[in-house]
Amino acid sequence: MTNPTAAMLVIGDEILSGRTRDANLHHIAGALTAAGIDLVEARIVPDDHARIVAAVTALRGRADHLFTSGGIGPTHDDITADAIAAAFGVGIGVRDDARALLAGHYARIGLPLTAARLRMARIPDGATLIENPVSAAPGFSIGNVHVMAGVPSVFREMAASVLGRLAGGVPLVTRSLRVDRPESELADPLRAVAGDHADLALGSYPFIRDGRFGALIVVRGRDATRLDAAIAALCAVFPDAVEE
Amino acid sequence: MTNPTAAMLVIGDEILSGRTRDANLHHIAGALTAAGIDLVEARIVPDDHARIVAAVTALRGRADHLFTSGGIGPTHDDITADAIAAAFGVGIGVRDDARALLAGHYARIGLPLTAARLRMARIPDGATLIENPVSAAPGFSIGNVHVMAGVPSVFREMAASVLGRLAGGVPLVTRSLRVDRPESELADPLRAVAGDHADLALGSYPFIRDGRFGALIVVRGRDATRLDAAIAALCAVFPDAVEE
Repeated sequence: MTNPTAAMLVIGDEILSGRTRDANLHHIAGALTAAGIDLVEARIVPDDHARIVAAVTALRGRADHLFTSGGIGPTHDDITADAIAAAFGVGIGVRDDARALLAGHYARIGLPLTAARLRMARIPDGATLIENPVSAAPGFSIGNVHVMAGVPSVFREMAASVLGRLAGGVPLVTRSLRVDRPESELADPLRAVAGDHADLALGSYPFIRDGRFGALIVVRGRDATRLDAAIAALCAVFPDAVEE
Repeated sequence: MTNPTAAMLVIGDEILSGRTRDANLHHIAGALTAAGIDLVEARIVPDDHARIVAAVTALRGRADHLFTSGGIGPTHDDITADAIAAAFGVGIGVRDDARALLAGHYARIGLPLTAARLRMARIPDGATLIENPVSAAPGFSIGNVHVMAGVPSVFREMAASVLGRLAGGVPLVTRSLRVDRPESELADPLRAVAGDHADLALGSYPFIRDGRFGALIVVRGRDATRLDAAIAALCAVFPDAVEE
């Protein structure tokens, strides 16, 4: 039996100009290898509608799965979702479930859900959302194409979620805790909890909100009881943690 | 006037498997931007003859210049030169000037020019060699395609050489000094010489030969008199240096 195949499409002027060094291609390459899926080609294209549509069409025909990164943020040059809709010949619009995710996120962090932010709830018709435990704005899967964020921490979480789904079997469950302290204070206790729960994946993502440092702790696993235990252990060492 | 355009093709199973993180794409992206050339697409393909030929054919028609990295070493999976010859419909064979570069290099470092190493002198008919001041085995340009090594230090030197040629004007001259001492001993004097010759580019590439540490110092510039001065200054601080 041969392995399933995948292709990767990195979307972004900033990679082609050399301003940003892409990290997502190397990450997905390793994650796919670990999952027994062969990465057969990767491409990097600019933020250009026609070029994105052409690359998506070529690559989704060449491999069992196509992963994309980049171009799903709030600014005018984030055109990936529209290009994917065009590549599949389907409509696109703000979807209620995606809007609810963003509304909840921005309410929690005390920022308005502006028109620019609402752009991130535009989802092609028929797509399935990919959760974003870091910053809420979802990715989506349509057909064999999995559309994910360019920010490496978000890309990694989305890739883990999709790969968990592709692998079949018991789905991965994700829970997130917010701790409003500098990440450096969390490192030692976090390592201890991670060591006691080696069957789970624990990630930590620092942020700055209103000038104060904080971190989001993301826990992922297949066994809900173990997840409960890890969350309880984290709340014991971080009594100020808030589940998001 | 619009900028000239370029595309980049990274060739290598090791990148797609995640074993190696590509560094050359990010390097060429920055170097092209600095040279006023727009990178319009990049692709990564495996060590597969048909896939390399197809990607070369697509990308060299899409941009003014195509740069490739990888697959020009001594092993059986180094098939880039043959794929390029096939893409251009020309013959390929060991060429005397390329063989002489390799023979000189291996004589200097006291190793035999084996059949495997001689593979690196196979050059498509009609190509122009790209010098390799680090490890001798040349790259080559044919039509608008520039075929370079995957090893990042060699790729960088070859890219500088090609970009200097494309920019027109006075060609870049390169000279190399070998110093059989650990690179860490060279850092301070090298920085001083570089500071006195800010119009030149000085690079240092550590190596281990026969279990002993050494470094190759590569000096590059457009003014032969200034190059003479920099080489003299380096030989003054490193009396054991040998020009290669």
